Amino acid sequence: MKVALVGIGKIARDQHVPAINGSKDWELAATVSRHGSVDGVEAFADLDTLLAERPDIEVVSLCLPPVPRFDYAVAALRAGRHVMLEKPPGATVAECHALEAMAREAGVSVYATWHSREAAQVNQARDWLKDKRLKSLKVTWKEDVRRWHPGQEWIWKAGGLGVFDPGINALSIVTEILPDAIRLTAASLEFPENRETPIAASLVFAHPHGADISAVFDWRQEGDQTWMIEAETDDGVLRLTEGGARLSINGETAAEQDADGNPLLGEYPRLYAKMAKLVRDGGIDMDLAPMTLVADAFLLGRRVTVEPFEE
Amino acid sequence: MKVALVGIGKIARDQHVPAINGSKDWELAATVSRHGSVDGVEAFADLDTLLAERPDIEVVSLCLPPVPRFDYAVAALRAGRHVMLEKPPGATVAECHALEAMAREAGVSVYATWHSREAAQVNQARDWLKDKRLKSLKVTWKEDVRRWHPGQEWIWKAGGLGVFDPGINALSIVTEILPDAIRLTAASLEFPENRETPIAASLVFAHPHGADISAVFDWRQEGDQTWMIEAETDDGVLRLTEGGARLSINGETAAEQDADGNPLLGEYPRLYAKMAKLVRDGGIDMDLAPMTLVADAFLLGRRVTVEPFEE
Repeated sequence: MKVALVGIGKIARDQHVPAINGSKDWELAATVSRHGSVDGVEAFADLDTLLAERPDIEVVSLCLPPVPRFDYAVAALRAGRHVMLEKPPGATVAECHALEAMAREAGVSVYATWHSREAAQVNQARDWLKDKRLKSLKVTWKEDVRRWHPGQEWIWKAGGLGVFDPGINALSIVTEILPDAIRLTAASLEFPENRETPIAASLVFAHPHGADISAVFDWRQEGDQTWMIEAETDDGVLRLTEGGARLSINGETAAEQDADGNPLLGEYPRLYAKMAKLVRDGGIDMDLAPMTLVADAFLLGRRVTVEPFEE
Repeated sequence: MKVALVGIGKIARDQHVPAINGSKDWELAATVSRHGSVDGVEAFADLDTLLAERPDIEVVSLCLPPVPRFDYAVAALRAGRHVMLEKPPGATVAECHALEAMAREAGVSVYATWHSREAAQVNQARDWLKDKRLKSLKVTWKEDVRRWHPGQEWIWKAGGLGVFDPGINALSIVTEILPDAIRLTAASLEFPENRETPIAASLVFAHPHGADISAVFDWRQEGDQTWMIEAETDDGVLRLTEGGARLSINGETAAEQDADGNPLLGEYPRLYAKMAKLVRDGGIDMDLAPMTLVADAFLLGRRVTVEPFEE
């Protein structure tokens, strides 16, 4: 299947292009970007031209920041193309609902991807937790924004989510591995005096069977970086680390190869494999659970002003 | 049908009690409140006691602030009672989803009420707009918080919504009268330095056919109070004023009596009539469109700090 990649920035180069090139399902047939391109691939400066000139490209994958992404998604859906959305699937919840409705009307697939859910060990964590009684779950997501988001001004603008841009990855894993729905009950959001989005947040959730669930997100972490979820159950402790790539259960590390000794597939190859299946089956996958928890954190959270942040 | 009213504050006394007493469908069978009661009606201090002692009361109407309301709703639904929720239906979007799922599981009705949608002229406005081409719509919702929310500390606490507590009423009308779904594209929220919720907001929306849609909410309005929606169409101008109680189209005021010369029914009597129908039909009405727009405003909005507010 031919796919066009829209928005050739860091995430496209680091993740989408290698995943597409490494897959038997996909051919990277074109790019759309005002600045970037990919060697050997036809480059368009705007999406409308691509949609008009390349009717053979059935699928459009959008790697733009959330705020401008909606109009591109609408154009692609109206042109009858299947659409794959980087996370978060929209700048607002209403946008996501609108895109889902349009895809249904156009009879095409739309996939709200959550790349962290496809990290190598997330499925194993989910399978192990399925029949355990959860006592507590703690998310610690601490990274250095200067290292991971250099020069990305949009993440600091209203709608850019701030520390929830990585934090929503953690919430996408939590909502995948827990068999029960959780809901936010309290949040504190730290906004640098000179920025429109938070640099840190702490969240408290309610669990239907009373487990203690909390999360801490922080973008000011220098040195060691932490993307960890720890769950305490009646049958021991699960630790999912490195953003879902490593798993230990009661201190024992889970296998990192498959039965043939190959490394487990990582995030983006699995996203593109799922998109291929979705298009073949004519499906829509628009799970908004992580997005809902983030919107709720902004809705319910206390805002705290902290010292200015300069990159 | 017997109804228990939970939370005997200003809105219960001013609106719910007269609406229930004025209806042939309903009997106010009990109240639950730590402080308030209604003359001649059995008063309980807590909901669990009422649920245990009065199995004959099928319906529970919750008039508590949004943050504590969820636990009461869960208790009532688990006890197999139908539940009517004051607006907003929850402190978070995830809460609303959870309540809807519980009601479906319990096979009972839940009604997320939006009282302003039942204002006398809202249906007429909706019917008139149905076949017009909308050019613009402007919401002006300016009231004096000291006059309408005296001593209500919860509205200033995180989760209390601030000026979106009245503002969500405007959005409930807009989402009722417009035939097309709108989505928020920009917002500015003014937080007093000493408060956790905004005292004013301005919102911009996108409309599928390109109409200009905006809203201004302000709680600092002294003197004349304004709850107005103005819509400009290809067939003239609609003005819905007094929160939906009055309507003019191209300068002509709509009739304020029915065919028999009786005044049109207002908000709460119509809410309770709808709830009676919902219970009889075994229905669920959990339209979250106004709530989604508010969550999106907090998610996407720029925060501006303004001078402290003292009541």
